[in-house]
Amino acid sequence: MDYEAHFQAALDGLKERGNYRVFAELQRHKGQYPRATRHTDTGTQEVTVWCSNDYLGMGQHPAVIEAMHDELDRSGAGAGGTRNISGTMHVHRQLEIELADLHGKEDALLFTSGYVSNWAALGTLAAKLPNCVVLSDALNHASMIEGIRHSRAECLKFRHNDVEDLDRLLSSVEPGRPKLVAFESVYSMDGDIAPIKDIIEVAEKHGAMTYIDEVHAVGMYGPRGGGVAEREGLMDRLTVIEGTLGKAFGVVGGYIAGSRAMCDFVRSFASGFIFTTALPPAIAAGALASVRHLKASPFERKRQQERVAKVRSALRAMGIPQIENPSHIIPVMVGDAKKAKMISDWLMENHGIYVQPINYPTVPVGTERLRITPGPVHSDDDIDRLVKALSDIWGQCALHRIEAAA
Amino acid sequence: MDYEAHFQAALDGLKERGNYRVFAELQRHKGQYPRATRHTDTGTQEVTVWCSNDYLGMGQHPAVIEAMHDELDRSGAGAGGTRNISGTMHVHRQLEIELADLHGKEDALLFTSGYVSNWAALGTLAAKLPNCVVLSDALNHASMIEGIRHSRAECLKFRHNDVEDLDRLLSSVEPGRPKLVAFESVYSMDGDIAPIKDIIEVAEKHGAMTYIDEVHAVGMYGPRGGGVAEREGLMDRLTVIEGTLGKAFGVVGGYIAGSRAMCDFVRSFASGFIFTTALPPAIAAGALASVRHLKASPFERKRQQERVAKVRSALRAMGIPQIENPSHIIPVMVGDAKKAKMISDWLMENHGIYVQPINYPTVPVGTERLRITPGPVHSDDDIDRLVKALSDIWGQCALHRIEAAA
Repeated sequence: MDYEAHFQAALDGLKERGNYRVFAELQRHKGQYPRATRHTDTGTQEVTVWCSNDYLGMGQHPAVIEAMHDELDRSGAGAGGTRNISGTMHVHRQLEIELADLHGKEDALLFTSGYVSNWAALGTLAAKLPNCVVLSDALNHASMIEGIRHSRAECLKFRHNDVEDLDRLLSSVEPGRPKLVAFESVYSMDGDIAPIKDIIEVAEKHGAMTYIDEVHAVGMYGPRGGGVAEREGLMDRLTVIEGTLGKAFGVVGGYIAGSRAMCDFVRSFASGFIFTTALPPAIAAGALASVRHLKASPFERKRQQERVAKVRSALRAMGIPQIENPSHIIPVMVGDAKKAKMISDWLMENHGIYVQPINYPTVPVGTERLRITPGPVHSDDDIDRLVKALSDIWGQCALHRIEAAA
Repeated sequence: MDYEAHFQAALDGLKERGNYRVFAELQRHKGQYPRATRHTDTGTQEVTVWCSNDYLGMGQHPAVIEAMHDELDRSGAGAGGTRNISGTMHVHRQLEIELADLHGKEDALLFTSGYVSNWAALGTLAAKLPNCVVLSDALNHASMIEGIRHSRAECLKFRHNDVEDLDRLLSSVEPGRPKLVAFESVYSMDGDIAPIKDIIEVAEKHGAMTYIDEVHAVGMYGPRGGGVAEREGLMDRLTVIEGTLGKAFGVVGGYIAGSRAMCDFVRSFASGFIFTTALPPAIAAGALASVRHLKASPFERKRQQERVAKVRSALRAMGIPQIENPSHIIPVMVGDAKKAKMISDWLMENHGIYVQPINYPTVPVGTERLRITPGPVHSDDDIDRLVKALSDIWGQCALHRIEAAA
């Protein structure tokens, strides 16, 4: 077999369908974010980033940067081993204790990423609970799907955010069998929020564990940034809360929080936790500073909500179609891969506005979009320029507008 | 089902079998490594680390630390997104180009860890090459096994480092079918090295791709630290070279290097690459500095080899049983999980010597060991103290000695 030809043909297919991904190569500027320098083959360009998951700008917060500098000078660069073999640093445990406290749980466990935390924790729990069945929301993230798939446990998919469907499916499972309900709080691409309380109640009725992914919520919802479950007073009723240190907390890494025995179980059996180098101490220190800051400071959360509301209402006034939702994520719908990329390219070339087009497999074909994530770092002027540019391109391309709702 | 009781019972089982893992909680000290402070429930203790995979001490190298400080001040903490959605930093591409050059390949692709690089790359290649069969060395690392398992491709395991067995298995596969031979160069627990040239020749004879994991070799072997394949002049004959930035390079992260089309193929289809936050720019900058330093400097490699030889011959003189191998890894064999842990605890408590016991599932039951990794950071005095302490405990416990070979 000609392997190179096979690779090339698959790439050509992506290009034909408009699904070939070109990464924007950026140089962020600490202190000036959302400004960044984009590197291209022909030179550089100053751009404003509108699609980052550094939702609160904590990636440039002085407390985070300082903690990282300090830990780098104290400990050095890497952890030097797996958690078991010389790689557990004091600051890892400090961070785990802090995260357990954030979620009101007995303990927490760090992973190298949110992806790995979902994959490893779900993969281990579903595989190691004998004859476990997983109830999985139809729109769960790839990392959760891969973890469940990895476990080889039976998986029943319930309709997205549909508690009745979940109830019906749970009723179909033998009562004594281990059951795990896996879902997200904020869904990243549509920005909708799960009916957490209803899901918990149905799960409790059937004796099922609950596993919530709060990666698009931690730091941003709840009085201390504990997520939507904190805001709704539900953290103690969830078996596993999974979160990330790479989005609102601005660094990198993932974690689960829950009972001491559950965390110790995953710690002891998850291949993706055991056989990998631990996070560098400076990363853990930066995340620790970020979690501590957002626990105490509501400023970033409030400002984010206010910025999101402002962008939403400006888009509404211009008739730019967006998915209305109760979160901080603004999906501007295009519905075609090539068109979404064309608009994104035009915004970048003509206005230095960077919004990555989102296409398959991240979203279903036909729902391609621009996903805008306003944050405390975006000024009124940034917003004006974004909305005006979008309105211009909508006009130029005769794209569908909706009735101004305001 | 009582989930908590199930978790607890599983943990109790591990404790009974001596396989429950207690992590040593360390504070490394930049500039004084291998010295570290161990935190316990009752206080702290100064220890010397003898089991790290920061093999060359690059985790505290001034060039690495400085590059990280600089990048932190330039870019901030995190990348803020997946590689596709605002997370590709200029320094990521610089590092990928540097790694491609290190291995004489067209391109390279970064992952959040070596574990993820194996899991995602093998999982994608084996799944996406139609009807692919994987030939996997019997002692491949967990991350490779999980990747192959994930792909759902047929997997034929060949006897460890046994080229005849590989040839026999390859002969049994229909000639036109895609075939992928996956193996390591240095095997981490026994420290033996694969017959790379012979494996390549058999693979070429049967038209199979080759995938080599060089995580315990990059930085340490070859004139520029390109690994064992570089030392043996074989890099251009391997389809995929996988490496890590978290061991000899002293930071964290993983990568593959190969043809432009192969890297682009994995970039475009691997879930574990696509759906995860990119490495922080400061991490990439530290790794870049480390790779560049070790490309030019043979000092660390030479000193490591000399330190390893010194420890080996001192252990030999004392009759302490070790696996003889041509690498930098010294497995001191104990053969019992509880005994290995007891020796490790005794070394820590009485001598401040930290060597983690290695037990199941990292090594087979009955081959439990202390895995010692001497490096340029260990002084003559460190070595004397280690060997004397081991000899003492061997005597006290009437452990098996071998005839002094020297």
